[in-house]
Amino acid sequence: MERRYLILAPHVFATRAAKTAHGVIAYSTDVTVGVVDPANAGRTVRDVLPHLDCDAPIVASVAAGLAFKPTSLLIGIAPAGGALPPEFRLEIAAALRAGLEIVSGLHTILGDDAEFAELAKAHDSRIWDLRLPPAAPLFSGAAYDIEATIVLTVGSDCAVGKMTASLELARAAQERGARAVFVPTGQTGIAIAGWGTSVDRVVADFAPGAAEQLVLEAERRAGDTGDGASGPAPLLLVEGQGAINHPAYAPVTLSLLYGCAPDALVLVHIPSRKAIEGYDIPLLGYRELIRTYEALCAGVKPARVVAVALNTRDLTEVAARAAIADAAAQTGLPCDDVVRFGPFALYDAIAPELAKTAVLHA
Amino acid sequence: MERRYLILAPHVFATRAAKTAHGVIAYSTDVTVGVVDPANAGRTVRDVLPHLDCDAPIVASVAAGLAFKPTSLLIGIAPAGGALPPEFRLEIAAALRAGLEIVSGLHTILGDDAEFAELAKAHDSRIWDLRLPPAAPLFSGAAYDIEATIVLTVGSDCAVGKMTASLELARAAQERGARAVFVPTGQTGIAIAGWGTSVDRVVADFAPGAAEQLVLEAERRAGDTGDGASGPAPLLLVEGQGAINHPAYAPVTLSLLYGCAPDALVLVHIPSRKAIEGYDIPLLGYRELIRTYEALCAGVKPARVVAVALNTRDLTEVAARAAIADAAAQTGLPCDDVVRFGPFALYDAIAPELAKTAVLHA
Repeated sequence: MERRYLILAPHVFATRAAKTAHGVIAYSTDVTVGVVDPANAGRTVRDVLPHLDCDAPIVASVAAGLAFKPTSLLIGIAPAGGALPPEFRLEIAAALRAGLEIVSGLHTILGDDAEFAELAKAHDSRIWDLRLPPAAPLFSGAAYDIEATIVLTVGSDCAVGKMTASLELARAAQERGARAVFVPTGQTGIAIAGWGTSVDRVVADFAPGAAEQLVLEAERRAGDTGDGASGPAPLLLVEGQGAINHPAYAPVTLSLLYGCAPDALVLVHIPSRKAIEGYDIPLLGYRELIRTYEALCAGVKPARVVAVALNTRDLTEVAARAAIADAAAQTGLPCDDVVRFGPFALYDAIAPELAKTAVLHA
Repeated sequence: MERRYLILAPHVFATRAAKTAHGVIAYSTDVTVGVVDPANAGRTVRDVLPHLDCDAPIVASVAAGLAFKPTSLLIGIAPAGGALPPEFRLEIAAALRAGLEIVSGLHTILGDDAEFAELAKAHDSRIWDLRLPPAAPLFSGAAYDIEATIVLTVGSDCAVGKMTASLELARAAQERGARAVFVPTGQTGIAIAGWGTSVDRVVADFAPGAAEQLVLEAERRAGDTGDGASGPAPLLLVEGQGAINHPAYAPVTLSLLYGCAPDALVLVHIPSRKAIEGYDIPLLGYRELIRTYEALCAGVKPARVVAVALNTRDLTEVAARAAIADAAAQTGLPCDDVVRFGPFALYDAIAPELAKTAVLHA
């Protein structure tokens, strides 16, 4: 279905807490017709966050947003722990009463909520819990036989831009004529791409198996593009999660690092970030991150970090270029901000390396 | 309750597939009154596995085992993926009809099975699914403030003896007068200790949080020993899981490595094992394992490997002593087989190092 999103992000739309809202506005092919945030009511998305390039109005309530004929209410936040903020309940109920579909990436499964389930039934609307995973098998090793070149983004922390880097590199690859597929591994990626599994929601024993199923599915999708399947191997750009020294989320990071069996890694970092968000743990430096990710891969299936993607949104352009030069000098790798300066320079810099990996497979 | 176990392990009791059976027989304070295994019916546990030091008879069926007045049927296997073998159904149903409690560590939740649930209700028996975890919060960092010295076993693979090493070291520490608590993190450990959480069954995002809750609970238990809580800090001996380069289970390994916030690690290995069981992946060597585990801890909360515990059951005594000498030479660490030669030498070798860690806390 083609969705028209009203996005619920009260009092946080302008902040990183509304990560899901920002990702869907920037990358979904579904249109956002309005945002619910009383703190910014009367302004537009562009007024608040110009880089999202979106003129949807911001309103104070779901009731006010109905004027823009949404089909769906998207829960626009991605809080640590993923619980439903109690103050969201009335607005979700109002949306269900108006017949809107609810799209949620929270750990709280809204379809299991008695009140919401009853309202959805009574008003013939539905609840799409993005995070509810399918049953996953144990990791089998089938991912090692995939012919596509698998590129996973790995980070220095949560919420640094791994999904965005994977999306931008997939876009660049497609525009350069490659059969490239973005592989969603979290709730925002699933909302954007319309498929995928939130690997962080899978039972720990089966999380690498769920990651493996995603790259197997992506390879099928890459083969279904109808271009005759000749030419170079497809490219799977897997959305990474967490960071290897994140005390809560590193097991999910590792589930992707092993389960997706990547051929190459792209390291993603925000230069202004110094500590793991919410914990008193310093970020690892570039060389330490590269050493750690590559050492872990070496024990299972070797993969090298081939590029660094920086998120420089909170820097001036001069500072951004300096940060990129610094990362390149420290790592000896191609380095860029794929949002600020576009993904093509970085993609073109790593494409020959990725093609070599594909030849190794053949 | 005091249990009298009949253990179901048809056709596999003598093999490592019956890991749960062997662990409970060796370490539970509950008594095993019989084992169901048609392949060895008529013999005793001692005939088949002398090291378990148990004279319980082996019988062909649950019906035959009822003669020994069991209170509970323990599912004695721990297969990869944890599914219920269909051929177990009739025997489980027979046990429920006889009023036995069912104790199971499978991923398949037997209490959710309609037939079993109905039989349990009809015959006033109960089903204890060891693997069903409590709701776990996100990792909070509270584990960093624990005063006890936390020792985690880490391995080169699954099923090498991490639980056994933790149990034996806890026993040695207790006999030396320390306030030591074994911390169960998997189904067999839970069956033995009567509490704990199977961390591999927790949703990936919350697995480190579940591990953290276990050490917090263990610290409370250590404080409740009634000895006035004077003297040195308690010792928590946490059962490890998996291995850091296990493609399916490493996320659980990492959940414990970060979530339990260990002060020290004990590396556990079977010298005869060369590859990860079930996968075409070589085991890492001693120095690589130590480097990898210590490097990961260094990024979160530093911890050193202080000893190596070898499982030499399948070696001659001469070969075992050679393997121990080799591990000691390669690592420069105290090294022993804590089952074959008892845990006291290894415990006494590391006790001063653990005491230093405790002083650092104070």
